[in-house]
Amino acid sequence: MNAIPQDAARLLDTAARAAREAAAVIARAPTPAKNLALLEAAAALRRNAATILAANAADLDAAPNLTAAFRDRLTLTPARIEAMATGIEDVAALPDPVGRLLAEWTRPNGLVMRRVAQPLGVIGMIFESRPNVTADAAVLCLKSGNAVILRGGSESTRSATAIHACLVEGLRTAGLPESAIQVAPTADRAFVGAMLRASGLIDLIVPRGGKGLVTRVMEEARVPVLAHAEGLCHTYIHEAADPAMARAILANAKMRRTGVCGATETLLIDGAIAPSLLPLLVADLRALGCSFHADGRAREIIADLPPATEQDFATEWLDAILSVKVVDGVDEALAHIRRYGSEHTEAIITQDETAARAFLDGLDSAVGMWNASTQFCDGFEFGFGAEIGIATGRMHARGPVGLEQLCTYRYHVIGTGQTRP
Amino acid sequence: MNAIPQDAARLLDTAARAAREAAAVIARAPTPAKNLALLEAAAALRRNAATILAANAADLDAAPNLTAAFRDRLTLTPARIEAMATGIEDVAALPDPVGRLLAEWTRPNGLVMRRVAQPLGVIGMIFESRPNVTADAAVLCLKSGNAVILRGGSESTRSATAIHACLVEGLRTAGLPESAIQVAPTADRAFVGAMLRASGLIDLIVPRGGKGLVTRVMEEARVPVLAHAEGLCHTYIHEAADPAMARAILANAKMRRTGVCGATETLLIDGAIAPSLLPLLVADLRALGCSFHADGRAREIIADLPPATEQDFATEWLDAILSVKVVDGVDEALAHIRRYGSEHTEAIITQDETAARAFLDGLDSAVGMWNASTQFCDGFEFGFGAEIGIATGRMHARGPVGLEQLCTYRYHVIGTGQTRP
Repeated sequence: MNAIPQDAARLLDTAARAAREAAAVIARAPTPAKNLALLEAAAALRRNAATILAANAADLDAAPNLTAAFRDRLTLTPARIEAMATGIEDVAALPDPVGRLLAEWTRPNGLVMRRVAQPLGVIGMIFESRPNVTADAAVLCLKSGNAVILRGGSESTRSATAIHACLVEGLRTAGLPESAIQVAPTADRAFVGAMLRASGLIDLIVPRGGKGLVTRVMEEARVPVLAHAEGLCHTYIHEAADPAMARAILANAKMRRTGVCGATETLLIDGAIAPSLLPLLVADLRALGCSFHADGRAREIIADLPPATEQDFATEWLDAILSVKVVDGVDEALAHIRRYGSEHTEAIITQDETAARAFLDGLDSAVGMWNASTQFCDGFEFGFGAEIGIATGRMHARGPVGLEQLCTYRYHVIGTGQTRP
Repeated sequence: MNAIPQDAARLLDTAARAAREAAAVIARAPTPAKNLALLEAAAALRRNAATILAANAADLDAAPNLTAAFRDRLTLTPARIEAMATGIEDVAALPDPVGRLLAEWTRPNGLVMRRVAQPLGVIGMIFESRPNVTADAAVLCLKSGNAVILRGGSESTRSATAIHACLVEGLRTAGLPESAIQVAPTADRAFVGAMLRASGLIDLIVPRGGKGLVTRVMEEARVPVLAHAEGLCHTYIHEAADPAMARAILANAKMRRTGVCGATETLLIDGAIAPSLLPLLVADLRALGCSFHADGRAREIIADLPPATEQDFATEWLDAILSVKVVDGVDEALAHIRRYGSEHTEAIITQDETAARAFLDGLDSAVGMWNASTQFCDGFEFGFGAEIGIATGRMHARGPVGLEQLCTYRYHVIGTGQTRP
């Protein structure tokens, strides 16, 4: 690991210490104060839309040689600013996750044990040049009583700064500490390295972006990380699948949006049903513009499918491309998923409950679905109201990370003078 | 960070891959099979007590220059082996934490969301030369469906190997994979380093031992760690405390056992009650053999108390020593705890509910107690039936870590053909 340049380390240290002090305050801030800050921030975003768009235009001018996709992510429009404001109002309307009584029991000696939800503390958010993430992430941290340090892509610095000013306006109006929401004081990449090593100062790192960014964060971080490096999701069509349901779900799981982490990348289909169903599935998807990489058994059924390499089955396409493999039963499907999957989301399509149970129980993935589209792996669809990301690790939280997952807990033990024998 | 020697890295890789395969099996092992393995292991420990004691004697002979405390931790006796066996039977009697339905809800579109407990996977246990920890830790991992790699102090290798043989006998009898419980194949310290960097192979590291060991693990680990580096616990006697209750609780919190992490190390007492109560508290504790480091205000009340340095308030004594500070109210007590505490366990003694709430709400510690001894911070006392350790971090689990805390969760989403709009 490279040493962190002095100045980046010093800047991070200053920011994180201010964030810790702010965290101690907003961790205990009353719900109305947090909601007021959110609503005022939304109002400020609308009020300052012109300023934000001008800052965004300056960001775009300063970065001429961008890919179309990158440029689109970086670009703000009046509609996107309005969406940010509405999103903030939605978060304000969500229940406060802090202070929930998670469990309570009484011991034989009369001690009352209470497990109570509390914020994590200081969250470090590392993301690419999508200015709207500045607001999305900050408001979830604020609502969950956490302080946050936001480090977005350097190309979006001006936009992020303008958005941040609106969030701070909300904090100020509500009488909450402004250091509760901070943007990185430098575009120096070394600041990211300092965040990743800030054990004791930052409690959690949430990276949001491409596999390259997330993988680097996971490899370098000395601070806990909630994230997913990729979503190589599988849809397994079991021999007892309802053909019409299978066609509708696969088309949705692959093609509704091809760029999301919950999109299906590989189709596994039972040999018993493939001869009759696979041609229909391929025709459906071709009509939607999807192309294929298929194994030998699939190509025996549809000769003109391009062949799949081993690497294809290990690839998260994030595009209108589907890897196809014919299998014989749940066990072979599970073995393929264990070998190539990313423990994100997998679905089985079947009318056979025994097969469905065997598949769901056999998975190690964060989310297993039965007769539903893998694209439902999303905090809103889970009913969390919002999400800061999807986690595929084993610790703390798995699947969509919403307000509740941004909290930890502590115990309150209520006694009447008990001493331990 | 130093590079890991080839051989240690290779040995860890082999052990961890075998553990992962075993984990996939025992994660889904039926409760009766896991319990059978536990009961058979307990029986094997009793049957092979002589062999284990001989191995332990050889360990003791091979390590002549040990401190008395170290020698005591390393020494096994027939009573300690019986205690191990009984402890295993207690764990067998506990409910199985795997597969519990943690939450269930239905979405407007009819999707049924289920959050289900599942094992973490492969746990790396790093501990000092206390042979009994080999059994204690292994059985908690087995009951919670996790595979475990045990790396105890090198001085206890022969004892650990003899105990391990009994645990494997249990696995074999129950038809469970023997690689589910492994001891480090080498005493090479580099193996520990390899464990700490085994991201993707080991899901969680649990260190158990002195502050030096735990701190090293926390600093070097690239794998999640559940632990506490120290338990610098405070008992705060508020001005509205019941004097008799305060005396009983403090004597217990400090002196019941001085070497446990939940022992009180610092007394904070309100200036309003100190003149009348502190002399009684000091007399109680002196009669029990406790000595003191006191701040100026305490020494104005009891002149012969030795003075406390700043360092004293930052010291986890783990001995019959108490730091004493006179404060004025909850806020000053909280400020002192934030500055010197370890976020482990703190208690307030008061009859004033408002003060108690302010104190408990103001803490960031894993456990806050009201009118109870800090020594209740223990998995058994919490009703967990067992504990593998105490965690003071923010992620995943805080406070006592028992069977439930050795699990993560996954989602099962049950649909009827839903596709995402």
